[in-house]
Amino acid sequence: MVAQLVLVRHGESTANRDNQFTGWTDVPLTAKGRAQAKKVGQLLADKAMTFDDVHTSYLQRAISTANIILYESHQSWVPIHKTWRLNERHYGALRGLNKDAARQKYGVSAVQLWRRSYTAVPPLLDRVTPDRRYPNQIEPLGESLAMASDRLLPYWHSTIEPALRAGRHQLVVAHGSSLRALIKYLENISDEAIDGLEVGNGEPICYTFNEKFEISPRQYLQADVK
Amino acid sequence: MVAQLVLVRHGESTANRDNQFTGWTDVPLTAKGRAQAKKVGQLLADKAMTFDDVHTSYLQRAISTANIILYESHQSWVPIHKTWRLNERHYGALRGLNKDAARQKYGVSAVQLWRRSYTAVPPLLDRVTPDRRYPNQIEPLGESLAMASDRLLPYWHSTIEPALRAGRHQLVVAHGSSLRALIKYLENISDEAIDGLEVGNGEPICYTFNEKFEISPRQYLQADVK
Repeated sequence: MVAQLVLVRHGESTANRDNQFTGWTDVPLTAKGRAQAKKVGQLLADKAMTFDDVHTSYLQRAISTANIILYESHQSWVPIHKTWRLNERHYGALRGLNKDAARQKYGVSAVQLWRRSYTAVPPLLDRVTPDRRYPNQIEPLGESLAMASDRLLPYWHSTIEPALRAGRHQLVVAHGSSLRALIKYLENISDEAIDGLEVGNGEPICYTFNEKFEISPRQYLQADVK
Repeated sequence: MVAQLVLVRHGESTANRDNQFTGWTDVPLTAKGRAQAKKVGQLLADKAMTFDDVHTSYLQRAISTANIILYESHQSWVPIHKTWRLNERHYGALRGLNKDAARQKYGVSAVQLWRRSYTAVPPLLDRVTPDRRYPNQIEPLGESLAMASDRLLPYWHSTIEPALRAGRHQLVVAHGSSLRALIKYLENISDEAIDGLEVGNGEPICYTFNEKFEISPRQYLQADVK
């Protein structure tokens, strides 16, 4: 069966706007972020793209984006599966910090390394803040992109990949780094080359899987010229 | 385990505003309806009421209400289970018709009977409109309240009741008639007496189940006097 996979990074959040490290901090969308989500939904409606399942994280900026996309594309009834495994990379002690302030505190090259290296781990938190959505101490104290990939890919294998193999179209609404980790896996991008990939807020990426489950090149969805 | 069940009818829809029979027609909320949903979410937040699961229908007026409630009560991550079994009673050929126009067409007493009798079936549709959310011809051509109850209660028994028995707090966001059918079952109300029950848009009803799974009296949630 041929199936489509669309990846969308949430619309602009208050932390994006304020240039802060965010990670698992649960910040809302800005008005601009809601408008970006609406535009994605309208784009999918224009292209008559329908989904059988939506997957998103436990963070409201992704969930709100998914809700708006489904509403605008007239398919609110499609099931949304929420999982902590699609959460943004956990930025440890950097979370909540303005990126310029972080550079002043830790130095430009350290911050660059934590942001861009695949395996560098940011300064860890001392302890997790209790949160009923994360039972059994699953919340990390900080993650490299590789660590985020390690907890995300089991969800890909258990849930998204089997649905695609069954010919079901899948929409994933997640985060800048969690989507980079997924794209790295899907396209077999090296640890070094993934540094160069940025996923913009509300810029949908589409892949098609053929009968042999071979993946198409990455395609950026754009409005048709009328 | 003690568990809470909260029932909420969706906020005002465009069909409520226009005094139309709606049923399975998928109309959106009005601005007033969104405000009603927001108020429910804020009420639940004020009372620090949290949920483990949310159940809603396949109709956007209920889904949007559920999304807004979770967002305003800071628990967007809670799973929302969508099912056609919680859809509004299907109003058959009356759907889309203004209620006054229906009385002119069919007579006051016939319309009164279809609206208020437990077992009266409204004029049926000739055929269903194909809709990918309803495969396998599950969409009825019209339903009495008793018929709506018959397709709703299997979901109660399979999904909501076991969760409550496990001590999990449940929120159900549905429709005027589908909630009347559920309340009739929960409170063991007679076919005749259910006629007198109205569930208002955005007026949350709460029940508590004790360790023996005995249900409390119906309680209307209201803002605490400050």
